[in-house]
Amino acid sequence: MRLCFQTESVPWFVRSSKLHLSPIMNINTLSEREETSPDFQFKVLATDGKARRGAITMPRGTIRTPAYMPVGTAGTVKAMYMDQVRDLGSDVILGNTYHLMLRPGAERVAKLGGLHEFARWPHPILTDSGGFQVMSLAQLRRMSERGVIFQSHIDGRKYDLTPERSIEIQALLDSDIQMQLDECLALPAENKEIERAMELSLRWADRSHTAFKAQSDHKARAMFGIVQGGDNPELRVKSAQALKAMDMKGYSIGGLAVGEPQEVMLKMLDITCPELPKEKPRYLMGVGTPDDLLESIARGVDMFDCVMPTRAGRHATAYSRMGKINMRNARHAEDHRPLDEMSDCPASSQYSRAYLHHLMRSNEALGGMLLTWNNLAYYQYLMQGARNAIEQGRYADFMANTKAGWEKGDIEVLE
Amino acid sequence: MRLCFQTESVPWFVRSSKLHLSPIMNINTLSEREETSPDFQFKVLATDGKARRGAITMPRGTIRTPAYMPVGTAGTVKAMYMDQVRDLGSDVILGNTYHLMLRPGAERVAKLGGLHEFARWPHPILTDSGGFQVMSLAQLRRMSERGVIFQSHIDGRKYDLTPERSIEIQALLDSDIQMQLDECLALPAENKEIERAMELSLRWADRSHTAFKAQSDHKARAMFGIVQGGDNPELRVKSAQALKAMDMKGYSIGGLAVGEPQEVMLKMLDITCPELPKEKPRYLMGVGTPDDLLESIARGVDMFDCVMPTRAGRHATAYSRMGKINMRNARHAEDHRPLDEMSDCPASSQYSRAYLHHLMRSNEALGGMLLTWNNLAYYQYLMQGARNAIEQGRYADFMANTKAGWEKGDIEVLE
Repeated sequence: MRLCFQTESVPWFVRSSKLHLSPIMNINTLSEREETSPDFQFKVLATDGKARRGAITMPRGTIRTPAYMPVGTAGTVKAMYMDQVRDLGSDVILGNTYHLMLRPGAERVAKLGGLHEFARWPHPILTDSGGFQVMSLAQLRRMSERGVIFQSHIDGRKYDLTPERSIEIQALLDSDIQMQLDECLALPAENKEIERAMELSLRWADRSHTAFKAQSDHKARAMFGIVQGGDNPELRVKSAQALKAMDMKGYSIGGLAVGEPQEVMLKMLDITCPELPKEKPRYLMGVGTPDDLLESIARGVDMFDCVMPTRAGRHATAYSRMGKINMRNARHAEDHRPLDEMSDCPASSQYSRAYLHHLMRSNEALGGMLLTWNNLAYYQYLMQGARNAIEQGRYADFMANTKAGWEKGDIEVLE
Repeated sequence: MRLCFQTESVPWFVRSSKLHLSPIMNINTLSEREETSPDFQFKVLATDGKARRGAITMPRGTIRTPAYMPVGTAGTVKAMYMDQVRDLGSDVILGNTYHLMLRPGAERVAKLGGLHEFARWPHPILTDSGGFQVMSLAQLRRMSERGVIFQSHIDGRKYDLTPERSIEIQALLDSDIQMQLDECLALPAENKEIERAMELSLRWADRSHTAFKAQSDHKARAMFGIVQGGDNPELRVKSAQALKAMDMKGYSIGGLAVGEPQEVMLKMLDITCPELPKEKPRYLMGVGTPDDLLESIARGVDMFDCVMPTRAGRHATAYSRMGKINMRNARHAEDHRPLDEMSDCPASSQYSRAYLHHLMRSNEALGGMLLTWNNLAYYQYLMQGARNAIEQGRYADFMANTKAGWEKGDIEVLE
């Protein structure tokens, strides 16, 4: 018996009786994302405690918040067709400046009509600044006040990334929501080091902002400043206040989920969010697990990106209403049941667990394709659930019921 | 300018103005494949020279011949959704007995409802006998009159494959068209060795046939005998005549495209096909290039399977009306044009060459997904063209025009 349903009585898209690749979603807010505005706008449409239900509207469409943004690292959400990504309810995807500047190159993407045209995603795109991946992937970095010089991890070629160049690259990619260049430290780190990086990031925020405002169509877009300060409450507050004074169009919270416990991350959100202006969107970078998302939404975060659902999918982990499920586990080998019969994502409801298990054990591409699809569907299902719950003033219940489902765990082993 | 069109004035499926994953094909013969028959039947519907346009009808549907069968090695056509495979015009797919008996195991597939249910392909499935891959993949083989004992290349487990067990496995998989166990040699080989293997294969054909006819529902299915004899005309004739006397439901031609030049293979077809009964389907195993397919059809072959379109796709080779195209080539790096704007396969017509190039250079899963899709679309396009041409008595023209397109080569490099 399955008793772990959430209170979401109506699935967020209608089940179809036919096999298909592109489920049509029956969400009453779905037409909302096709709405456009010549200028970048953000509206908070409803609140429930600190949780916010909002909408960012731009020339390329509307992002319903809270929003999870699938990560399209190198111009592709790994192992997915963009049509599937869109059909799952994604309003915006993320592109990685670091990856794209190395290959195929920002100028080449611009020549080919921009990232939307290149990757066949005509909807909003958010890009990071490249800074985070320079720290984690590139070789032979040399940091200075001016910027960072590094060698490509692909071919050793040398690149020069300054706040101005990062913004230029993001403009070449035709990014709708751009990020300032910042310095992101791994935690734990010394307070002195955290402060130095935070102060540098503030100066880079100012330079990035100046470069952004020089873009002729900057009103249609946004650049977000990034709050740093590690796990130090005072530095977080100082960073947020300084950025608020710069009057950015939105604010990112960076340097979290980089090694610290979840409670530290949530404490930083508790401290940071109240310092940020209510009328601007808040984006928690690179976070996180389904639980991280729900807890962060409860603290006033509006946007997320994370590679977890895509990366985990390729490594046989399925996210679901019943928690994390390891599809390589032998318990699935002869289980004819789908991952989640209540889902309308074909990957979740139309393939047997035995087949998914077999595909992952056999290293078949379709295994990663299907589990990625399932995981992105689940993340978007969570976001839709959160948006509905905030609108209806029952976000705390939604979060509790969702967690109870995870706690209860997977359906019973088939006898 | 593109002047290399084939005489096929109407593409075999209609172009849609919308992005989609599942093109609906406008083939006048498409309803044909949904026709069923309680017994296995084959009809030659039209001939043009030695080329035949036919139809195999079974409980699970109709296979329009000439037919190319995508290879679904381990219960998945690599990097494809089955819905896509079907939508491209595939009437039947191939499953590999060797792979499936090792993982997930024939008894397990049977327990899960058979291969059709397991892999979500409710249409006809043809299986090989496992013999070919025992020779090419397994370790520590021991051949005897009785069969072959081998160790799995996956985990070293020992298996015993006899003609009877091969047929039993194929029945457990619920295969619609089964193959006798045979011994397939690589060429060149000594005549004495070729004769020994051919004679053994004939004895195994008889044993396989007996086992097949013991299946309670064998009338709804077929088992094909396999002509062997290497590159020796006399042995080929002897094999074909002996199999003909056994009155199989269809005949495979095995042991070709195993190292010999194309002209040797075609000569063997010239010799073998006339020895086979006109009213039975003929299947050339494991062949081949688009050119191999057209030349073989001209000699009276009805069915093909080959990993080339799927394997080549994962390695950046696109098959097209303009011949083979290497998508890793730098000429595509800034080419905004699609692979083939005339195709209605989204992979071929809706993604830029620059994007495909980027995906392959970046080892992104989507690259292999798209090129596999393109290649299977092209193979099925060729088959549909062949079927139309035979019906209209212009197969020689079709073949010549198609080859002229390949000869002319790719569209000009973009300036």
